[in-house]
Amino acid sequence: MVIVIPERTDADLDSGVHLHVEAVLRHYLAKRRGELPELAQTFAAAVDTLSDFALRGGKRIRPTFAWWGWRAAGGESTGERAEAVLTAVTALELIQTCALVHDDLMDASELRRGHPTVHVRFTDAHRAGAWLGEPERFGMAAAILLGDIALAWAEDLFSGAPLTDEMRAATREPWLAMRSEMFAGQYLDVLAQAEGDESEERALGVARLKTAAYTVERPLHLGVAFAGAGPDTITSVRTFGTDIGVAFQLRDDLLGVYGDTEVTGKPAGDDLREGKRTLLVSLGLSYAEAAGRHADANLLRGALGDPELTQDTIDRVRDIMVEVGAVDELERRIARLTTSGMAALDAAGLGEPGRTRLADLAIAATRRDR
Amino acid sequence: MVIVIPERTDADLDSGVHLHVEAVLRHYLAKRRGELPELAQTFAAAVDTLSDFALRGGKRIRPTFAWWGWRAAGGESTGERAEAVLTAVTALELIQTCALVHDDLMDASELRRGHPTVHVRFTDAHRAGAWLGEPERFGMAAAILLGDIALAWAEDLFSGAPLTDEMRAATREPWLAMRSEMFAGQYLDVLAQAEGDESEERALGVARLKTAAYTVERPLHLGVAFAGAGPDTITSVRTFGTDIGVAFQLRDDLLGVYGDTEVTGKPAGDDLREGKRTLLVSLGLSYAEAAGRHADANLLRGALGDPELTQDTIDRVRDIMVEVGAVDELERRIARLTTSGMAALDAAGLGEPGRTRLADLAIAATRRDR
Repeated sequence: MVIVIPERTDADLDSGVHLHVEAVLRHYLAKRRGELPELAQTFAAAVDTLSDFALRGGKRIRPTFAWWGWRAAGGESTGERAEAVLTAVTALELIQTCALVHDDLMDASELRRGHPTVHVRFTDAHRAGAWLGEPERFGMAAAILLGDIALAWAEDLFSGAPLTDEMRAATREPWLAMRSEMFAGQYLDVLAQAEGDESEERALGVARLKTAAYTVERPLHLGVAFAGAGPDTITSVRTFGTDIGVAFQLRDDLLGVYGDTEVTGKPAGDDLREGKRTLLVSLGLSYAEAAGRHADANLLRGALGDPELTQDTIDRVRDIMVEVGAVDELERRIARLTTSGMAALDAAGLGEPGRTRLADLAIAATRRDR
Repeated sequence: MVIVIPERTDADLDSGVHLHVEAVLRHYLAKRRGELPELAQTFAAAVDTLSDFALRGGKRIRPTFAWWGWRAAGGESTGERAEAVLTAVTALELIQTCALVHDDLMDASELRRGHPTVHVRFTDAHRAGAWLGEPERFGMAAAILLGDIALAWAEDLFSGAPLTDEMRAATREPWLAMRSEMFAGQYLDVLAQAEGDESEERALGVARLKTAAYTVERPLHLGVAFAGAGPDTITSVRTFGTDIGVAFQLRDDLLGVYGDTEVTGKPAGDDLREGKRTLLVSLGLSYAEAAGRHADANLLRGALGDPELTQDTIDRVRDIMVEVGAVDELERRIARLTTSGMAALDAAGLGEPGRTRLADLAIAATRRDR
């Protein structure tokens, strides 16, 4: 059950981490598909759709943060231990596959990275085949089960990586916490939308759990723990991860409303249409109210979660959030979090080239033209 | 991270396996809930609903088969190794919690064990709070995320049990296969319903993967592998598990149509209303056609998946399946599989009291008044 880097080249894994991650992912998905019993060939065909989805792109940001954490804390770039770490952190991409497939279903998103989402593909197949029952119900069932298998296989990839006992013991806490925090963050997000929560606290709570903890802090924690980092380094790295992770989410909030569809791969205003309770929305509402612009606040409230949202209303909402100062405040917070995150990174006492690569990743995740 | 049996009594674990399983489950769910970060307290409240669901009953059949496999293959009933095995096999109940929560959602089932299902509880909470968006969509999201966390925690419980390296290596194959087979079986079931598949082959495929492999064969495989069983014993035990598991599903098919609501906890005729493509249905259709009873076959086809199914039609379907001989054939197959399963059990060379307890479990799982 040992997983090795396919088409092993003895190359330095530092070159193109995301490509190495994709190679492991491709190899592992093919392997697990091949192990399915003869009786399960229809499921194997469904797994092909899941594999297409998982392999079709994405920035592999979680394994990349984990990898550079490992390197910055003294881990090697070649050899058996390095390959074991790369294999283990590729599991983060399968967790993310589960999260995206289930998230798209919960949000009823039609597109992801410019392609139909998984539940939509199965809904369409049902409709095309003129099968029995409701197409949407079949699409839902397929997406639930494929997300589930991605999660189960993520666990298997992580637990099957040829790590030493010390590496496994050191990473148990962040591995356990990361997955709980991710699902907790998703739930907090869904609940905030349902309750129409306008508080800054709730919006920041979602950003902390769903993005900062799951996307940056815990992957980094895993990476440095693989290399045997001590408690002080772990604390500094986690602070860096939390600050940069929240800044990353705030940049995402801005892109979700002001971003170019060509770049984001999602329809303009999708975050508004879905009723996402971001910090941008929270500040937009409270600043509008504080400025006595109650009609504008209500226009924003009405836009949130409106499936029939028009381009005119989206444009109006965009203008309001600029005018009341919410966009400027988000930019200020992103700048502040980036500064404090970088200070924590400097305090962590990490080595090169890892330290510089982590700083570069942080800048890339939070900049305007991401 | 070592999990120990709470309120340890040094009692023989053979006495009331399901009670020991429930104690571990209760302890573990409380522990993981307690570890959720302060920011995630709303999710912790949702986890309480999941815990209620997981702890509210069920026969703990999977860990019980695994336990008696362990004992029959020479494992002890007390001591550290026994406690580690009991802890590890309790993870099967958390996998089952994920499967049930997601399955109820996919099937739109309102009741489970006589209580509202998880997605219904959250749909109701949304409606009661007059929250934003569609209540059903919120209920769906909560059920997806709670099923996901149950699956993640199942992995953590299994991987955290203080097993020896040998025990862990010996059980890796069945652990990996079991979860893939379960999700594959669920998908096959959903697909057969959508395609209106009437073949005996498909119905048996679902029974093999979803019930036999996941519920009996693999739990037993895990149990004997924990005890270091050799390949011959494993082969015999798996044959026993497959035969008894299929017989168990065929009994379930009969109870799903003829069972007493008081006993099954589900509305009468629910399997028909959901359009489940069981072997009973497959044989009912083919026997009716073979007997020239085309109108009866079409009545049965029309009943499958009809949400408005009346009691009169259910009664008529019941009569037809008896008259064409499908019920008798199912009883014959259950008897035959039970006999062949018992022969495989005898050939496995297992010890007492495990062997007798496995035989008792097999009888209990397949008998008419289950």
